[in-house]
Amino acid sequence: MTGQAVELRTVCTLHGVLRAERQDSIAVEEPLEIRLAHGGLPGAEPLSITMRTPGDDLNLAAGFLYGEGLIRHRGDLTGVQHTGQSGNVVRVDTAAQAPHPGARNARNFYASSSCGVCGKASIEAVTSLLPIQAVGGAGQVSAQVLGELPERLHAAQTVFHRSGGLHGVGLFDLQGRLLDLKEDVGRHNALDKLVGQALRDGALPWQDRVLLLSGRASFELIQKAMAAGASIVAAIGAPSTLAIDLAAAAGVTLVGFLKAESLNVYTGAQRIA
Amino acid sequence: MTGQAVELRTVCTLHGVLRAERQDSIAVEEPLEIRLAHGGLPGAEPLSITMRTPGDDLNLAAGFLYGEGLIRHRGDLTGVQHTGQSGNVVRVDTAAQAPHPGARNARNFYASSSCGVCGKASIEAVTSLLPIQAVGGAGQVSAQVLGELPERLHAAQTVFHRSGGLHGVGLFDLQGRLLDLKEDVGRHNALDKLVGQALRDGALPWQDRVLLLSGRASFELIQKAMAAGASIVAAIGAPSTLAIDLAAAAGVTLVGFLKAESLNVYTGAQRIA
Repeated sequence: MTGQAVELRTVCTLHGVLRAERQDSIAVEEPLEIRLAHGGLPGAEPLSITMRTPGDDLNLAAGFLYGEGLIRHRGDLTGVQHTGQSGNVVRVDTAAQAPHPGARNARNFYASSSCGVCGKASIEAVTSLLPIQAVGGAGQVSAQVLGELPERLHAAQTVFHRSGGLHGVGLFDLQGRLLDLKEDVGRHNALDKLVGQALRDGALPWQDRVLLLSGRASFELIQKAMAAGASIVAAIGAPSTLAIDLAAAAGVTLVGFLKAESLNVYTGAQRIA
Repeated sequence: MTGQAVELRTVCTLHGVLRAERQDSIAVEEPLEIRLAHGGLPGAEPLSITMRTPGDDLNLAAGFLYGEGLIRHRGDLTGVQHTGQSGNVVRVDTAAQAPHPGARNARNFYASSSCGVCGKASIEAVTSLLPIQAVGGAGQVSAQVLGELPERLHAAQTVFHRSGGLHGVGLFDLQGRLLDLKEDVGRHNALDKLVGQALRDGALPWQDRVLLLSGRASFELIQKAMAAGASIVAAIGAPSTLAIDLAAAAGVTLVGFLKAESLNVYTGAQRIA
């Protein structure tokens, strides 16, 4: 059951007066529980449950903890593995010097308790609580190269072609070469998978890289991209105001409505040649 | 600052060799903190923070609590209002007989603590923990009427036309008349707004109604639709496996890939004429 990104289900298609029953590929959505064992302690505490598409579970768990600030670099990650029989539980082991789960970052904190973030003007409050990590990278990407990326991502999304139901997130170099691609029913999961892979490969930060989002750019996605040090984030869809504000604060170049012939630059235009 | 669904931001558009700087409308994303005062107690406890598009905040808060099972009917809701100066905090008052926040439903429970849901096959575990509410409604909708709904939703999404960044959720009757429409940067928020409005208007359950989702159908959206008693849910995008499974268990008719000329029926085909 688990581990597959798509499953076959019976579907009845109506097309005008025609009616056909057939088997169709559907994107799988299943819960994943992430447990954390800090400092090599025997017990693992439940940390989070996310509804995700199976596949790249270990990267998803590692990337999620990186975005939460519980893993700062590859040395903090001492192990990551499935546990139990279901395939839907992953245990992450962190080093004794890794941040303690009690010290989860502000974003997580304000999502679960009162901290006054909503009682202030939004971006000032968010940026005062979130550690803003200025991203580096002076390299430029041309508008022409950017315009070619959506088609490259789409061509590489073989799973997308099979189900039509998965978000894709791609990592490219400044010449437009695809370095990695992850997919999920949830955009945040796809990005966590990409971050976790890079973390485990020692390929962070994403300086002089282009991160391509198949959908819209929200605050949450820019926050994860910033944590991974992404210089340039391009979205095929629209950004939100808070995404633009956070990108500006972190020095991230943010591109939206990316098409073959045109694009919008919201922040960091100096990196667009 | 708050209360607006869109804001103007400076954007640089590149189109081939042309470059134009202009003001563009961007979908607003800001945090909303929902606080709950149960049984008329003076203090209100922080319950949740969501990143949302301002507007319909009171409906969003009421609909969120309804989906969480903390409000069962209109009588449980004794008050809902903004509090503080920011416009980003809403206080909900529930009656003494309303469910206590300590008794939040299983879905919320498993999102924040260990409950073993991921240790079992997914749908069995989810359906054993979630209260499955069978939806009623024997009324049928024709495939032709369904095919007209995406264009009607799109035409009504004036905010969408201005920013291109908002998800829309529409409620229709079986003849295809638009009854209500809500928008948000988050699909779950748009649906919470629609549910909250209907709850406060005494218009639940949504028996013999068609709920139209502008994007994909995930487990979370079907769970909220089921709680509101929606007979028929149609999505312009793809469903996930878990969305199909939950719709089947609750007797919800689920349509996906809805277009003017064609549609897919995944569950409850008896309601499609």
